[in-house]
Amino acid sequence: MLRSDRLARLVEAMAQADVSAYIAASAPSLRWLHGLAETGGSRFLGLAVHRSGAVRFIGPALSGDQARRAGVSDLDLWQDGIGVGPALRRLTDEWGLEGGSIALDDDAPSVMAFDLLESCPGVGLVRGLGLRSRVMGIKDAKEIDLMVQAGRIADEAYLAVLARLDGEFRAGRALTERAVGEMLWEEMEARGGTPTFHIVGTGPGSAEPHHHSGEDEIGPGVLLLDFGCTVGGYHSDITRVVHVGPVTDPEVDSVYKVVHQAQQAAANLAGPGVRFQDVDRAARSVIEAAGYGTFFTHRTGHGIGSTGHEPPHVVSDNIEAMAPGNCFSIEPGIYLPGRFGVRLENLHRVTPDGAASFNASIEPAIRILGV
Amino acid sequence: MLRSDRLARLVEAMAQADVSAYIAASAPSLRWLHGLAETGGSRFLGLAVHRSGAVRFIGPALSGDQARRAGVSDLDLWQDGIGVGPALRRLTDEWGLEGGSIALDDDAPSVMAFDLLESCPGVGLVRGLGLRSRVMGIKDAKEIDLMVQAGRIADEAYLAVLARLDGEFRAGRALTERAVGEMLWEEMEARGGTPTFHIVGTGPGSAEPHHHSGEDEIGPGVLLLDFGCTVGGYHSDITRVVHVGPVTDPEVDSVYKVVHQAQQAAANLAGPGVRFQDVDRAARSVIEAAGYGTFFTHRTGHGIGSTGHEPPHVVSDNIEAMAPGNCFSIEPGIYLPGRFGVRLENLHRVTPDGAASFNASIEPAIRILGV
Repeated sequence: MLRSDRLARLVEAMAQADVSAYIAASAPSLRWLHGLAETGGSRFLGLAVHRSGAVRFIGPALSGDQARRAGVSDLDLWQDGIGVGPALRRLTDEWGLEGGSIALDDDAPSVMAFDLLESCPGVGLVRGLGLRSRVMGIKDAKEIDLMVQAGRIADEAYLAVLARLDGEFRAGRALTERAVGEMLWEEMEARGGTPTFHIVGTGPGSAEPHHHSGEDEIGPGVLLLDFGCTVGGYHSDITRVVHVGPVTDPEVDSVYKVVHQAQQAAANLAGPGVRFQDVDRAARSVIEAAGYGTFFTHRTGHGIGSTGHEPPHVVSDNIEAMAPGNCFSIEPGIYLPGRFGVRLENLHRVTPDGAASFNASIEPAIRILGV
Repeated sequence: MLRSDRLARLVEAMAQADVSAYIAASAPSLRWLHGLAETGGSRFLGLAVHRSGAVRFIGPALSGDQARRAGVSDLDLWQDGIGVGPALRRLTDEWGLEGGSIALDDDAPSVMAFDLLESCPGVGLVRGLGLRSRVMGIKDAKEIDLMVQAGRIADEAYLAVLARLDGEFRAGRALTERAVGEMLWEEMEARGGTPTFHIVGTGPGSAEPHHHSGEDEIGPGVLLLDFGCTVGGYHSDITRVVHVGPVTDPEVDSVYKVVHQAQQAAANLAGPGVRFQDVDRAARSVIEAAGYGTFFTHRTGHGIGSTGHEPPHVVSDNIEAMAPGNCFSIEPGIYLPGRFGVRLENLHRVTPDGAASFNASIEPAIRILGV
């Protein structure tokens, strides 16, 4: 069913951004706005929203029944073999979009951008993600509650896996990255979470931010665990770094502490009215001051909610001010190629008078396993 | 590693299509061309291919290590906070693309189309999917072999589930759509397939082509099963329709037979040199002749391979001629809203002298379960 409260906020943001129409076309926005479960895949499927608040479903004929069942009354269904062109031209004409602009979800497939460029040459095509994030990026109490649950499950799964790993390593058993990933999966599922991803990196693998967990055998050395799950469609995402066996490289201890301080500095600054770029800077300056600036190769954090990564991001070119209900990760990292990497990540939300973490606090010194 | 044989075919197709550069940006094309496993998500990540055969990786800094490990030597990595703009302008300048055109994967996220439109205003942006399908759409013997295996698993899983369902219904036990979906999942996994999707529709649910399986209890009546798996990343996809309990609505029998004849007519026509639109017509005219034309609401079939849906499609506006190595579904359907639907689907491939099915033949009359 159409969420009329959300539609009203969206229409307000459209007026501010001066766009004539917005097309919700990816799974997150279709679900958020209208509870629609299906996207078009390689076919054009979108909910067009006019600045007046009018809503029209444009999609393939075979999706008509589901759209009707969800309560969409204005449908323009197109047939395979004819294509979406006529429906887009009707939209342009009937809604008077000529000379105006259409915002399209950045996470919609490019096929929809091509369809709009070809069928609506007199209408400007613009990014929809900034617009959308100004409304979807403000989570309500119910959304926050689901993220609190998902965060708690991630925290508990981490502690459970830590205990299991400690036992395995003390017993001298060998484990692969994949096996540790499966443990994380099990422990999240056992607590009612739907696991979404895991990155398990051992030794040099921890120095790759998007490492693919494989058959590499774990440790001795640094072990990085980055994972998350959903509850009711809302995400958690945490990263922890531990050490298997005694620390032999003293730089591991010092790098861990720098990253921890950077995470804390950013988390302490976050709050309403603070610019996202300043929170990025807070983390980055700690790492730069310690001489590791060139080894922090990504933004400090990403927005999160009903998707794993969404604006607003904690990044140096985001001049937006934080607002209550914004949810994002703070996850600085230092990656020493071929040696090891440390990234520490909690999720945070902006509250009316500051910020709160969705996760337990991160240990200030690296934890040793198997000794 | 770069597949130089595939690159050569791609470059030839680019010359024919008269595009200056192509950007592989979605999981299927990155894997197909270079074995790259990672996409950029919300960040621009692509393999740019110049008409000369030059290849450049453009992606976020945090993906650099993986691209290097895959053997990409020309990398232009961009930093969060700066964005991909400078890298795209370097590409335009150094490759002399001004006044030419860039083809982008239709299944890449729109964010990449927006990045190209903004950073390369003097370069035409065009759909990449048609170009790509002319090379990726011709499967080699190794790819065919994987699809044969995936097809066999789907066939065997169907028979196994059929036997289980018959037993359950004879014993008078109630089953939900979801439970049947889980059976299909189990039987595909047990045979080494990686299940990808399932649609289980009972009664009126079978009349929705993209029905979402839920807690609806099965039958008596029509039961539609549409499912598939991958082997080595290559897909199977079949649809079968059976009846729970004796057929009470005589139209079920006649509709089943019409759809079966339509499937056969299209499968019999397929072969090298035959146009895809004529194969669509072969199925459609059987259904139209029986008076059900308005209830066949989708194309006759879709291309398939390392993705579940890809060109070339069996659709009325596809004037391409079939070529050996093309793989696609033939899946006509008749959907009577609120009553029942019948869709019958096998996968087929074009051979040098005709066509072959990846699946066992479809039963010519509806099979009865639980009696």
